[in-house]
Amino acid sequence: MKRPPAASRRLDEAQAVALFRRKFAAPRARGVLMGIGDDAAVLAAPDAPLVVTVDASLEGTHFRREFASLTDIGFRAFQAAASDLAAMGARPLAAVSALTLPRDFSASELEELTRGQAEAARSTACPLVGGNVARSEQLTLTTTVLGTAEHPLPRSGARPDDDCWLVGDVGLAAAGLALLQRPGRAKGSAEERCVRAWRRPRALIARGLALAPLAHAAVDVSDGLAGDAAHLASSSRCRLVLEEDALRSALPAALVTVARRLGKDPVELALYGGEDYALVAAGPRAARPRWARRVGRFEKGRGAFLESDGERRVPLGGGFDHFKR
Amino acid sequence: MKRPPAASRRLDEAQAVALFRRKFAAPRARGVLMGIGDDAAVLAAPDAPLVVTVDASLEGTHFRREFASLTDIGFRAFQAAASDLAAMGARPLAAVSALTLPRDFSASELEELTRGQAEAARSTACPLVGGNVARSEQLTLTTTVLGTAEHPLPRSGARPDDDCWLVGDVGLAAAGLALLQRPGRAKGSAEERCVRAWRRPRALIARGLALAPLAHAAVDVSDGLAGDAAHLASSSRCRLVLEEDALRSALPAALVTVARRLGKDPVELALYGGEDYALVAAGPRAARPRWARRVGRFEKGRGAFLESDGERRVPLGGGFDHFKR
Repeated sequence: MKRPPAASRRLDEAQAVALFRRKFAAPRARGVLMGIGDDAAVLAAPDAPLVVTVDASLEGTHFRREFASLTDIGFRAFQAAASDLAAMGARPLAAVSALTLPRDFSASELEELTRGQAEAARSTACPLVGGNVARSEQLTLTTTVLGTAEHPLPRSGARPDDDCWLVGDVGLAAAGLALLQRPGRAKGSAEERCVRAWRRPRALIARGLALAPLAHAAVDVSDGLAGDAAHLASSSRCRLVLEEDALRSALPAALVTVARRLGKDPVELALYGGEDYALVAAGPRAARPRWARRVGRFEKGRGAFLESDGERRVPLGGGFDHFKR
Repeated sequence: MKRPPAASRRLDEAQAVALFRRKFAAPRARGVLMGIGDDAAVLAAPDAPLVVTVDASLEGTHFRREFASLTDIGFRAFQAAASDLAAMGARPLAAVSALTLPRDFSASELEELTRGQAEAARSTACPLVGGNVARSEQLTLTTTVLGTAEHPLPRSGARPDDDCWLVGDVGLAAAGLALLQRPGRAKGSAEERCVRAWRRPRALIARGLALAPLAHAAVDVSDGLAGDAAHLASSSRCRLVLEEDALRSALPAALVTVARRLGKDPVELALYGGEDYALVAAGPRAARPRWARRVGRFEKGRGAFLESDGERRVPLGGGFDHFKR
């Protein structure tokens, strides 16, 4: 019997754990009492309320390997999970990762994937302290992140008369994915920025922490500004009115450029494109920091609308729903 | 276009979240400040070191629907994760669950699955506070559990001269699975007990908490006593000697009965059968509580052996490795 080539040689669990330990064992990360390799990780008792959330990234649904390297895939799956901490105004504490790997997934592929996870863990100061590996038909990354928040930002805290703030950019990732799906795309710097937004999103942890004492509510934009901001409004029993002029002037120039080349409306990409991991918040006008752009307002009532020319209103459609695909 | 029948009607994410909320929203579980429905759950600040671990249960690898109901599948996936808390001597705090559901999975099937998770959450006093749902080709349940432990029990704490303790039963679940794989099996009470051990394992949370101040190290038996106890020994840089006579006398009568009917050696089922979620611990002879059965000892040296007739030693083979299948 021939041995398979190294690149496709099968991993066993001990190898995978050893690789995890090497990749993630941050030399005694702050507060990590026991890391990878035991039945569980142990962290020093947190001194504030604990925030916990889990997010899954599945091949075919959330990513395709032809559009991103395995390192990108590991990076963005981690950032997507960490983004929920940002939306809560939480400080990252630690993460655990459950991977399912296709049968032909090699040790070097796992190395690439975990490199991306490790980069994201470092960049969010959220050490990976444990995990689980199983064989499957499908590559999936399920990331649980823990954080602490003295005053967590709920979805349900928006009040009538609050302004609607946008922190970070929306629409770039959707434009980037559209570019990746078109062969022979142009390669200007605007395009590069969009593709990078899709491949390398960043959880806005520092912005979330800064918002916590200022805003009444926040949500991260994973499925499109329209849908996620509408969720915030309905959770808060308010009406959302996004103002087209304000939104348009908050769009990055790269989005406008690429949208034109794609023959799309940049506002539509901003409203319905997902996976940028920007933040939408509700807060009183006087509290808005300059890096939060006002894109609308909350009112008494129900529903979510786009207001154009200061009067005409159209209801916002749903967001981008991974679940339905 | 005809609507599909209710049983196979597609779920959308809002429905799934509503169902989760109904199933899991324990009316203000102790310490749960924000539960399902926001970007993350929020728990009161724990007053002891935090223990966190994640475990995945995959259709085809860890379970088959012809051998267990969806309620059983939800129950055992949760208990398997909680068992790692037991092994750490930790008190459960909360859990989050990431599900991937096949495209034809119906609302009533999700109801059954989550019923089992909710039962297990109640029985372990570990409220489910959040989750994630995605579509996939495969039914998978990935459960992250959090707990607290003033003195967590590591794998690596065994000392030469410690005894090896077994808490709970081993081999029953493997016997139960073997029965399920044979059509036309007999239905005596011993058989029922084995099948139930496989379908409805229980994390030994109270035993783990009681072990924490007595033992030096512990591990849960998910992949077979031989393999998991050997991991404990190698993590502790000790040699493990399991004593066949002691082990044999610790076996439940139901295992002996069913093993005979299956034509298998009950000791082999005990050593190499997985998924019972018993605990193996290392501790000083004088500290052993009566519900922990002595099945061997640790020594200076390396390796893991089965000793028969007080002298003959054979090396213990590896455990049952889900990853390799």
